[in-house]
Amino acid sequence: MARARALGWGGNEVQMEGTGAPAQRLEPAGVPRRAVIEDVKPTVDGGRFPAKAAVGDDVVVEATAFVDGHDLLACDLRVQREGQPEWTTTDMAPLGNDRWRGTFHADAVGRYRFSVRAGVDRFATWRRDLVARADAGQDVRSELLVGAALLSKVAARASGAEKLSLSVAADAVATAAARSGLSSPVSRSGLTSPAVPDGLDHSDETTVGAMLQSALLTALVRRHRATSDATTSATYTVVVDPALARFSTWYEMFPRSASPEEGRSGTLADVEARLEYVEALGADVLYLPPVHPIGTTARKGRDGAIEAAADDPGSPWAIGSPEGGHCAIDPSLGTLDDLRRLVSAARERRIEVAMDVAFQCSPDHPWVREHPEWFLHRPDGSIGCAENPPKRYEDIYPLNFENDDWWGLWLALAGVVRFWIAQGVRVFRVDNPHTKPFAFWEWLLSSVKDEHPEVILLSEAFTRPAVMYRLAKLGFTQSYTYFAWRNTKWELESYMAELAGVSHFFRPNFWPNTPDILTDALQTGGTATFVARLVLASTLTASYGVYGPVFELQEHLPRSPGSEEYLGSEKYAVRHWDLDRPDSLAPLMARLNAVRRSHRALQRNDTLRFHATGNDQLIAYSKTWDDDAVLVIVNLDPAHRQSGWVDLGDFGRGPGESIEVHDLLTDARYRWEGSHSFVILDPGTVPAHVLSIGVGSRSSSTGAS
Amino acid sequence: MARARALGWGGNEVQMEGTGAPAQRLEPAGVPRRAVIEDVKPTVDGGRFPAKAAVGDDVVVEATAFVDGHDLLACDLRVQREGQPEWTTTDMAPLGNDRWRGTFHADAVGRYRFSVRAGVDRFATWRRDLVARADAGQDVRSELLVGAALLSKVAARASGAEKLSLSVAADAVATAAARSGLSSPVSRSGLTSPAVPDGLDHSDETTVGAMLQSALLTALVRRHRATSDATTSATYTVVVDPALARFSTWYEMFPRSASPEEGRSGTLADVEARLEYVEALGADVLYLPPVHPIGTTARKGRDGAIEAAADDPGSPWAIGSPEGGHCAIDPSLGTLDDLRRLVSAARERRIEVAMDVAFQCSPDHPWVREHPEWFLHRPDGSIGCAENPPKRYEDIYPLNFENDDWWGLWLALAGVVRFWIAQGVRVFRVDNPHTKPFAFWEWLLSSVKDEHPEVILLSEAFTRPAVMYRLAKLGFTQSYTYFAWRNTKWELESYMAELAGVSHFFRPNFWPNTPDILTDALQTGGTATFVARLVLASTLTASYGVYGPVFELQEHLPRSPGSEEYLGSEKYAVRHWDLDRPDSLAPLMARLNAVRRSHRALQRNDTLRFHATGNDQLIAYSKTWDDDAVLVIVNLDPAHRQSGWVDLGDFGRGPGESIEVHDLLTDARYRWEGSHSFVILDPGTVPAHVLSIGVGSRSSSTGAS
Repeated sequence: MARARALGWGGNEVQMEGTGAPAQRLEPAGVPRRAVIEDVKPTVDGGRFPAKAAVGDDVVVEATAFVDGHDLLACDLRVQREGQPEWTTTDMAPLGNDRWRGTFHADAVGRYRFSVRAGVDRFATWRRDLVARADAGQDVRSELLVGAALLSKVAARASGAEKLSLSVAADAVATAAARSGLSSPVSRSGLTSPAVPDGLDHSDETTVGAMLQSALLTALVRRHRATSDATTSATYTVVVDPALARFSTWYEMFPRSASPEEGRSGTLADVEARLEYVEALGADVLYLPPVHPIGTTARKGRDGAIEAAADDPGSPWAIGSPEGGHCAIDPSLGTLDDLRRLVSAARERRIEVAMDVAFQCSPDHPWVREHPEWFLHRPDGSIGCAENPPKRYEDIYPLNFENDDWWGLWLALAGVVRFWIAQGVRVFRVDNPHTKPFAFWEWLLSSVKDEHPEVILLSEAFTRPAVMYRLAKLGFTQSYTYFAWRNTKWELESYMAELAGVSHFFRPNFWPNTPDILTDALQTGGTATFVARLVLASTLTASYGVYGPVFELQEHLPRSPGSEEYLGSEKYAVRHWDLDRPDSLAPLMARLNAVRRSHRALQRNDTLRFHATGNDQLIAYSKTWDDDAVLVIVNLDPAHRQSGWVDLGDFGRGPGESIEVHDLLTDARYRWEGSHSFVILDPGTVPAHVLSIGVGSRSSSTGAS
Repeated sequence: MARARALGWGGNEVQMEGTGAPAQRLEPAGVPRRAVIEDVKPTVDGGRFPAKAAVGDDVVVEATAFVDGHDLLACDLRVQREGQPEWTTTDMAPLGNDRWRGTFHADAVGRYRFSVRAGVDRFATWRRDLVARADAGQDVRSELLVGAALLSKVAARASGAEKLSLSVAADAVATAAARSGLSSPVSRSGLTSPAVPDGLDHSDETTVGAMLQSALLTALVRRHRATSDATTSATYTVVVDPALARFSTWYEMFPRSASPEEGRSGTLADVEARLEYVEALGADVLYLPPVHPIGTTARKGRDGAIEAAADDPGSPWAIGSPEGGHCAIDPSLGTLDDLRRLVSAARERRIEVAMDVAFQCSPDHPWVREHPEWFLHRPDGSIGCAENPPKRYEDIYPLNFENDDWWGLWLALAGVVRFWIAQGVRVFRVDNPHTKPFAFWEWLLSSVKDEHPEVILLSEAFTRPAVMYRLAKLGFTQSYTYFAWRNTKWELESYMAELAGVSHFFRPNFWPNTPDILTDALQTGGTATFVARLVLASTLTASYGVYGPVFELQEHLPRSPGSEEYLGSEKYAVRHWDLDRPDSLAPLMARLNAVRRSHRALQRNDTLRFHATGNDQLIAYSKTWDDDAVLVIVNLDPAHRQSGWVDLGDFGRGPGESIEVHDLLTDARYRWEGSHSFVILDPGTVPAHVLSIGVGSRSSSTGAS
């Protein structure tokens, strides 16, 4: 019985006939379905997790579907937006080798369900066989009777004018059968004629053949065909996020360094005043490190020193003091009103303020007193600080998710996220999610998205690939990546290939730097490297971010040799920045972000293609979206000019033909002939081309003269 | 609630604290497990179908498993043979990047179940952190107390001497904590010392460090560690088939052509007399086309003529006459006793007789009269013959699986298979399974294997890849392939790569010819092509077959130009063969099959590697199994000598070193130096090398002189 159930059959035990052995044969509960559906995409781990899409996407669904024997198949895509009763049904088209494709449009945030339905297309099968028989000169009278009966059955499921049309068609086929067998009119010429009949009421032999092939009849039969014997796949979920989840430009800054006056600590009001700068940069997410009260116990000093000086502000990630915890604003930054005002003012500029979600506490956090059971206790009863032995983080107590009141802890943490959503925050950057249980995130993220499908959460998990991908599956909207450490052409190309393989659930967000990550390349490569990394981050993926103003001001000194920490890191100190310095990369960032906004090709990841250049220091890739095409070429060598012949691939033209290319960084325009173009890039000037390709502008140089 | 269940949680609705919105937060029924298990192999479609193995295989199980945070993981493989109560548990080993591997031995036919279990290894985690702390000179007294408590808990789960040992270890650690904190002895030198303590009863500080690292203590703790908080994967099934399923040599022959006397039709007794020949060839499966009574209505004549002459015997696949159907023996071939005797006599020579399972009927089959409802009826009430319009097969009625008594039909067909199993048949070749419903095969194959796990069924589905692979998933033991039409190096290499991707469920059986398939290559290529195709079939895969004696006698004339049908095909005529012809390839077949038996490397598919030759006409590949290694090089050009430098890959040696190679076809022996070897193959002599590589025989030419 277990086997029968595993196969999806109910069953009665029956006695085998014909053989001696006592048999256990289990009768399927109903007629088994003939069609098979396999390998449905987009799905994640066989449907265990939802796939991701964004508002405005055409979600492409594919499946392998087939049936025994030679019968033709009809394959439908069925889609339902969660909470709405209707399922829409659209045809899927065959791609060859039993693969089928359909599309639905994601027009609003929320969850969509879809399934694939496949069954024998009896009308199409009958019609194909009829043509083959008639073309071979066989007598098809009997087949026409079969077809007439088939059409009558379809007509019985229709109503009104459609029923009438189908009945007339059935009659016409029956009449043709009665008259002559129609072996001549249902010939290849008759059945494949492009002429569409002006109606279905013709009963003369010649037009019956054309009628059977007409798009009108085909659509009518399809609409009313029997589906009771069709196979339906499992139902899969696609979470549709805001368009910002697919295409976003992040900018991180420390509020306390936002003061325009040197010597005064910045506030949320200063951040509000800096929105104009952020808007000019072209960012649409402004991410602030934690803005909560900072503990004083074991506070870190400048550059992470164990002993803090009296005026050291401490790490914003040492959250909590007597003035409050995760739902409070550090009084030196301002008030909750200031935060709400900042969020509103930013939104008027089409910028979302992203809050940091760092689920850890300073020793002074109210929870340490109120809920000591949520923390890890040592044998002497004291609470243990965060450790990655032998490293110790004395200013931070980790939460112990294995405590007996883990459910109370989960609720409290969910309350934090819900609190900030209630203040108007829609975007969150989540600190170190990989150090909290996966089950917790699945619960939290599902719960949040249930109520607030518009919310975006960025996972800051710099850890092993399987863990990063798991967090994305659990519901994180975007994810930090290894981009910062992928510098060579081979590293970049193979990493993009890896990310393409997880694109249904993992949305990469490329950061060339973060407060924790000043890479060796940025320390040593100079401006050419800053520019190259900025161009790569902003064009390889649709979502990227920089930690500024240190990025545009090209901060590159490490705390110590071999360290990825910034010297004088803002994590432990208030800094003052001169945004108007002539060496600022802000104008280039603004230009790149404007290009990203005006070129749709850069707003998606799935059309990325690499182009051969014949030079390991010269990377080239393109993206397309409809008529928009962008080709990017970057010199990865900060020290030398590099040149190569770029294989234009699909953009290439034959001899004597050319395409127009427009460098979006320098505004230069060129006409490129042939299949390859020679490119030289000098790190001393601009080490990259970002080229708009005139896809529609094919011209022949001979014809143009 | 639906969501909560989907996540595997039971739940109570609780009120959210801290925020205004009415909340639905669902409490998990128990503490959620921390470890995650993904991507378990071998599995087929996420466990929907069993994977395949053969008796004697070491089944390699892999999984991705990880946990949040920095804790170390312990990963177990759990295995149960179906019908036995015990589950065995063995350690899985980490492969890096969260991938784990374990192995179990398939020692008998039947179904095995396995699952993967992963949980935090608290002892290993504690020990790793202790070492890191101690090495950094930190005070570890508190940590030692934690460890002592941990060991005490483990001891509480053990009994007898093991409990004692664990308790002593716990005491030793507690004592060390009380004395000094042991910061010095638990140093890197102490903890990584290779010395294994002679017991666990030492309490002095120096040996506590070594004790904690001892293999004995590690194994004891592992055996008794808590698994109640571990995560267990789904349970997956592996069907273990007889060894013959993995490694088999098939030989097909028509019994009616087996007579030693020209002019007399052969019998099963003649086949029995020919077993000596088949044994000498080295075949272990002798496959006979259908041996049932053949219909006379619409019987096909010579070369498939519509009109049969009076003495034409008809196609053996037009099954059924008044003398019986699928459970009867054609009287002209002999009796059921003759068949049973043949099966026994063959088994004495370690040859299995394979019967043909062709579920279709001649118009004279008893079922046509007894069960007309099982067939397709035309509008005039007549039964339709088999068609693939416009082609018609007048001598065959297909079974209509969509008839109202489909279940009666299923039972009858299962009865056929069971009948022949009852006669001693263990191997079946199933004709055109893709024209019968997939659900039928899943039911039939599962039922048969439930009772007779030793049975092997070969799927003869020459159709689209998805359909062929589905049939294999449903339970067919082996499958025909596209090998006959894969001739160029690129075709062969890419096809082998495709097959490697489905190896968990699809076992290819390579046939250079069948009664339906005389390829263009064999028609035109001459002896060199026959030899090359034989070498390829017998060495690329572990299971292959030929249709003889036409293959070894190099029959190559088609019925008509462009046809793949043999002229004078045995499907429609009795033929007489002179097995002693000097041009017979039987001696080469015997040699190749002897090589296959004596070289384990050729008895599996998963170690196949291709070697570059720099010549598209020269294909080279190797297989290994333990110390056995075979390198095959074939000239694919039947008309010209071809040469190239074969990249020896892992077999290659540095300058001045050599390996011994032994050509198993010609018995020549060579010493090859370096990383590449120059090879010339002449289609006029033997166009292939089948080389045994002396993997263990590395020698230095300087040292050997």
